Amino acid sequence: MAGNTFGTLFTVTTFGESHGPALGCIVDGCPPGLALSSADMQSDLDRRKPGTSRFTTQRREDDEVRILSGVFEGVTTGTPIGLLIENTDQRSKDYSKIKDVFRPAHADYTYQQKYGRRDYRGGGRSSARETAMRVAAGAIAKKYLAEYAGITVRGYLKQLGPLAAERLDWSVVESNPFFCPDPDKVPAMEAYMADLNKRGDSVGARINVVATGVPPGLGEPVFDRLDADIASAMMGINAVKGVELGAGFACVAQQGSEHRDALTPNGFVGNNAGGVLGGISSGQDITVSLALKPTSSIRQPGASVNIAGEAVEVVTTGRHDPCVGIRATPIAEAMLALVLMDHLLRHRAQNAGVESPTPVLPATAGP
Amino acid sequence: MAGNTFGTLFTVTTFGESHGPALGCIVDGCPPGLALSSADMQSDLDRRKPGTSRFTTQRREDDEVRILSGVFEGVTTGTPIGLLIENTDQRSKDYSKIKDVFRPAHADYTYQQKYGRRDYRGGGRSSARETAMRVAAGAIAKKYLAEYAGITVRGYLKQLGPLAAERLDWSVVESNPFFCPDPDKVPAMEAYMADLNKRGDSVGARINVVATGVPPGLGEPVFDRLDADIASAMMGINAVKGVELGAGFACVAQQGSEHRDALTPNGFVGNNAGGVLGGISSGQDITVSLALKPTSSIRQPGASVNIAGEAVEVVTTGRHDPCVGIRATPIAEAMLALVLMDHLLRHRAQNAGVESPTPVLPATAGP
Amino acid sequence: MAGNTFGTLFTVTTFGESHGPALGCIVDGCPPGLALSSADMQSDLDRRKPGTSRFTTQRREDDEVRILSGVFEGVTTGTPIGLLIENTDQRSKDYSKIKDVFRPAHADYTYQQKYGRRDYRGGGRSSARETAMRVAAGAIAKKYLAEYAGITVRGYLKQLGPLAAERLDWSVVESNPFFCPDPDKVPAMEAYMADLNKRGDSVGARINVVATGVPPGLGEPVFDRLDADIASAMMGINAVKGVELGAGFACVAQQGSEHRDALTPNGFVGNNAGGVLGGISSGQDITVSLALKPTSSIRQPGASVNIAGEAVEVVTTGRHDPCVGIRATPIAEAMLALVLMDHLLRHRAQNAGVESPTPVLPATAGP
Amino acid sequence: MAGNTFGTLFTVTTFGESHGPALGCIVDGCPPGLALSSADMQSDLDRRKPGTSRFTTQRREDDEVRILSGVFEGVTTGTPIGLLIENTDQRSKDYSKIKDVFRPAHADYTYQQKYGRRDYRGGGRSSARETAMRVAAGAIAKKYLAEYAGITVRGYLKQLGPLAAERLDWSVVESNPFFCPDPDKVPAMEAYMADLNKRGDSVGARINVVATGVPPGLGEPVFDRLDADIASAMMGINAVKGVELGAGFACVAQQGSEHRDALTPNGFVGNNAGGVLGGISSGQDITVSLALKPTSSIRQPGASVNIAGEAVEVVTTGRHDPCVGIRATPIAEAMLALVLMDHLLRHRAQNAGVESPTPVLPATAGP
Repeated sequence: MAGNTFGTLFTVTTFGESHGPALGCIVDGCPPGLALSSADMQSDLDRRKPGTSRFTTQRREDDEVRILSGVFEGVTTGTPIGLLIENTDQRSKDYSKIKDVFRPAHADYTYQQKYGRRDYRGGGRSSARETAMRVAAGAIAKKYLAEYAGITVRGYLKQLGPLAAERLDWSVVESNPFFCPDPDKVPAMEAYMADLNKRGDSVGARINVVATGVPPGLGEPVFDRLDADIASAMMGINAVKGVELGAGFACVAQQGSEHRDALTPNGFVGNNAGGVLGGISSGQDITVSLALKPTSSIRQPGASVNIAGEAVEVVTTGRHDPCVGIRATPIAEAMLALVLMDHLLRHRAQNAGVESPTPVLPATAGP
Repeated sequence: MAGNTFGTLFTVTTFGESHGPALGCIVDGCPPGLALSSADMQSDLDRRKPGTSRFTTQRREDDEVRILSGVFEGVTTGTPIGLLIENTDQRSKDYSKIKDVFRPAHADYTYQQKYGRRDYRGGGRSSARETAMRVAAGAIAKKYLAEYAGITVRGYLKQLGPLAAERLDWSVVESNPFFCPDPDKVPAMEAYMADLNKRGDSVGARINVVATGVPPGLGEPVFDRLDADIASAMMGINAVKGVELGAGFACVAQQGSEHRDALTPNGFVGNNAGGVLGGISSGQDITVSLALKPTSSIRQPGASVNIAGEAVEVVTTGRHDPCVGIRATPIAEAMLALVLMDHLLRHRAQNAGVESPTPVLPATAGP
Repeated sequence: MAGNTFGTLFTVTTFGESHGPALGCIVDGCPPGLALSSADMQSDLDRRKPGTSRFTTQRREDDEVRILSGVFEGVTTGTPIGLLIENTDQRSKDYSKIKDVFRPAHADYTYQQKYGRRDYRGGGRSSARETAMRVAAGAIAKKYLAEYAGITVRGYLKQLGPLAAERLDWSVVESNPFFCPDPDKVPAMEAYMADLNKRGDSVGARINVVATGVPPGLGEPVFDRLDADIASAMMGINAVKGVELGAGFACVAQQGSEHRDALTPNGFVGNNAGGVLGGISSGQDITVSLALKPTSSIRQPGASVNIAGEAVEVVTTGRHDPCVGIRATPIAEAMLALVLMDHLLRHRAQNAGVESPTPVLPATAGP
Repeated sequence: MAGNTFGTLFTVTTFGESHGPALGCIVDGCPPGLALSSADMQSDLDRRKPGTSRFTTQRREDDEVRILSGVFEGVTTGTPIGLLIENTDQRSKDYSKIKDVFRPAHADYTYQQKYGRRDYRGGGRSSARETAMRVAAGAIAKKYLAEYAGITVRGYLKQLGPLAAERLDWSVVESNPFFCPDPDKVPAMEAYMADLNKRGDSVGARINVVATGVPPGLGEPVFDRLDADIASAMMGINAVKGVELGAGFACVAQQGSEHRDALTPNGFVGNNAGGVLGGISSGQDITVSLALKPTSSIRQPGASVNIAGEAVEVVTTGRHDPCVGIRATPIAEAMLALVLMDHLLRHRAQNAGVESPTPVLPATAGP
């Protein structure tokens, strides 16, 4: 495949360019019987959408999603769900300046080399706008997981540039524009972003995502491991450069006696495993952390080349988030939900006809 | 699929348990015309194999691979390549002690929960022994990449517990038992490992893998991105808990003006991208780093439960590497080679009939 | 997957119900550089569309296809092509009569059993209306095959009920409403259809499809054989109950000395093989024949049951083709084009880096 | 993929050439808990094996299958099942005569064109010997289907050249060398085969396969339809040139009032559908018919060309079945079982969390 499909049994295939007529996707494999309306997707789309605060781009993307198929009388039928978002804010901007130039850290150069041509308007297919469809599809998975499997997926901003959250208070995550779980850090983040804006620069971020209520047994043993699929899902988000599960890179300096999570009749103690052992969920929380690079579109001039290989200076104008990481929280949640949904269905298929064993241990939360 | 196949056009499907009669795999999609003999795989198998130094387990695994099909008169024919390694060192050990017990940090508990039963002898399918087949298959990919595409894949140990290599001298990597590129650190590593052995403990490691000569244009734009597939390949290696490309987690604290690699008529300057922009190779080196947790099998007693959910103390006996990371270097190389091979074929398919554009920039090495 | 995707490298994923807001599909894997506009698809859509003669249903389906992505400045970019057809002729009909009843020979009963519910309006997902998207996608494949590979795909009606074409005159196929290649049979077909209409009955048909210019070497050796994929593509068309290649069922009574096509320096003699030997194209024409059952929606009352399992009599009203086979010619062409396109790309990928052998024999036509 | 894998959730990947060291396959996705030993496969392997009567080739293929993984203490564990058959009867024959010559109706020419080379010994990968692995894998599916789903798959020879069975007496199928269900025809078949042998010619055959006990609801709605997957499975068997379901090609001349199977409170009346409506099983028997071309290896000289394109006369010597169709019955059963097994698992996955509806109708047999 040409790489626009995610998943095996619960699949999402997306299409659409930043400045084309529309974005869309097909969600295939959703079990019948799930109550579903566009409102179920709209709240996550709104969380992802730019223009919601002065720290994200002021472009107005209405991101109104329409369900075109697969739902009848308010309930999924088992047939593919077609989703569509029309691009309403396509300003007839002049792109001639960047048409033959490769913006540094963007995908301009690689698309040109891969395909011999590219839709240069707003990044075309490589625009983060494409992730709107992942969020819409992920919202369906989230809803199914919550209603049929008792699984909750949620995320937060762990670090913005040099500023790391030190507390995890879920109750404040949705009430600040950064998805920051540490209310004490919000003022510093606001000041930091204002300074970046002034200087025309951008910064990276670290996002954490957590799934609770995941039953043990999800994930295949060797290649389609739950952790491998999560790594693929996260690294596939625009701008991500690193992915960790549980202890992550900290495990390099850990000793075995320290890293291993003890099993007790009351559940696991600790969660260095991040909820996955041998590629299969353990019943612990799934804890994932990802690193997002700074926004590539910044106002400071940068050295590059044009399509003829000549040196040029590139200045990006227009409206851009100074930290793409801020908007990545709902995207990361969506991708984790898609992975879990797929493996939930796979697990049920493969254990078909065999009694599913009752978990030996009670579910236990991560740190 | 049940998850024992890797790749899309160049696929590897493995089977085999640690203490069953044999391990094997099928490599499907290898182009015809590649000269191939079992010796081409044996050298990497020997690098991976335990018992090669006193710092790896003293089990003797002969790991002699046989080619059962797909090669005729010394050359691949285009049909699937069947590979087999017989398990010759299956000691008739008594496993009754661990039969009903879940060793902490192992996959015992998760396999039991997934399947309702498990082959408990030596970890069964979850044993690192399975990776022998990945190394064999990867050796085929490595050979094709080198001979037909000018791509080289190699790796080294970046860090062993607290001890990090500070120099990268490729010439010494193969001449010490750690794959360490910094000869000055080898004595300290030896001492550290000796101490671990004495205490019956283990430690984590960081492995770096680099691919040079990768042409721009490999990778699909949205889901089957080159970086996403690399992340999946690496996280799918036993014991891996984190994966980075290029700057990795350091990008969280970078600003955009610092992170972006400038394009110049002489090539890229720097390699924060790790050779991938927008999911597609840029012509820079592909630089990957992975974190491996400490070996789970240690001699120090650990708290766990048995299959009835009762508290038990587990002591692992037998021969085990105190640092699985040491043997992971050839495995990580193999997995990176498999990903590149697959995307090389995919790229050629999709650009079929269209002139492949000459790279605008010369190839440039990473840091 | 839930079965709404066709192909491996050139994939088509469709969505949409007969009476929902829209039908759509995503064509993924189209190489960049192909000139493409909606007009390229519209002519085949118009050939498939009902209401074009008094022998097909008088429903008016505008079937105007919009390209939503993947084409920039009139040329494909290599990114997925989103296609959409709005359903404009959704009469607010009363479906309460068939809501709880299973129409014989329809998919009503099987959808209900599979999903526990169904969109009963006009057959929902099982409606032949879904094939509009296959025709649109197939038109892209046809165009690529013609322009980049010299392959032509075309079809005709071989038999309508008891009336078989005896001559194959390609020049008349498009100038009669039956796609009949034998002008002498057209009046009899008209009379036969008029009689069926009067009696409220329907009839089956046989369609032949031929691909010329196919190079030898397409198709995989064991499972994804060219003939196997063609069989799947054809049997997957609504109402198809049989598929043949070359001699087809006639080979049951043939002897080996009669069946085998001789190879001569001027090419093959005969085409009992139908252009495929060992699952791989031979350079002969690909000749496929398929059987379509009579339209299930007829005005004559039929015995069935309702959702409670009680006996009921079903009478189908509304506008329906008395022979679905008539409209199947462009659908069968589309499916054959999709299979060939996929295998063309696969072949190029797998022979990457290896000189593609010049055919030993000149191309030869079938009977 | 390069086409050596069959299935989606229950997959079979095969390798091996006729005269290489061994044949093998990996069965992935078998649910845990199935009692399995090599004896379960051996009986079907013996039914397929040549040398069992004087009407099949006298080559001795021991076809002893070994289970290398995936079974522990006599029961499947859920991990991949590796199977191996060593090639013991590799006579050191002189193949120099056919090395550069393309035997008519064989895959010699197409393999050469596809790959630029081929293993010419005994047909290499294109040999019917490869189907031994399909039969072994199919036996696992058959066993699961019988034990966990109440589904039985069996087949018989419907026609041998001009001689058609007129009665279907299942009790005699296994007691004659033709799998013929009509004992009155066996003597005529014996005489016919003896005559063919004398003349050095061969003949085609028609095989019927029937699955009983299939629950309604298996199969996906649009592309991965149950009938499409069956068509692919059957057309993918060596020498098959046609596939029918239910009424098959007879439906061309049927009228709608005649073709449709009535639904009654006691089940379906008739089985023109062949057990599939809208791509989904109906609960009727699945009835499949396939046409096999005559054996291509015959002793009568045939016209062909050599690798230089020069005219040559080819005479095939050695031991060959005069009717490959005879041995195809167990292969066709195996392939049908693999398709049903795959769709059984897919169905369970997709209806996960949703009550599976009780069939409205009782199961009904076909004609």
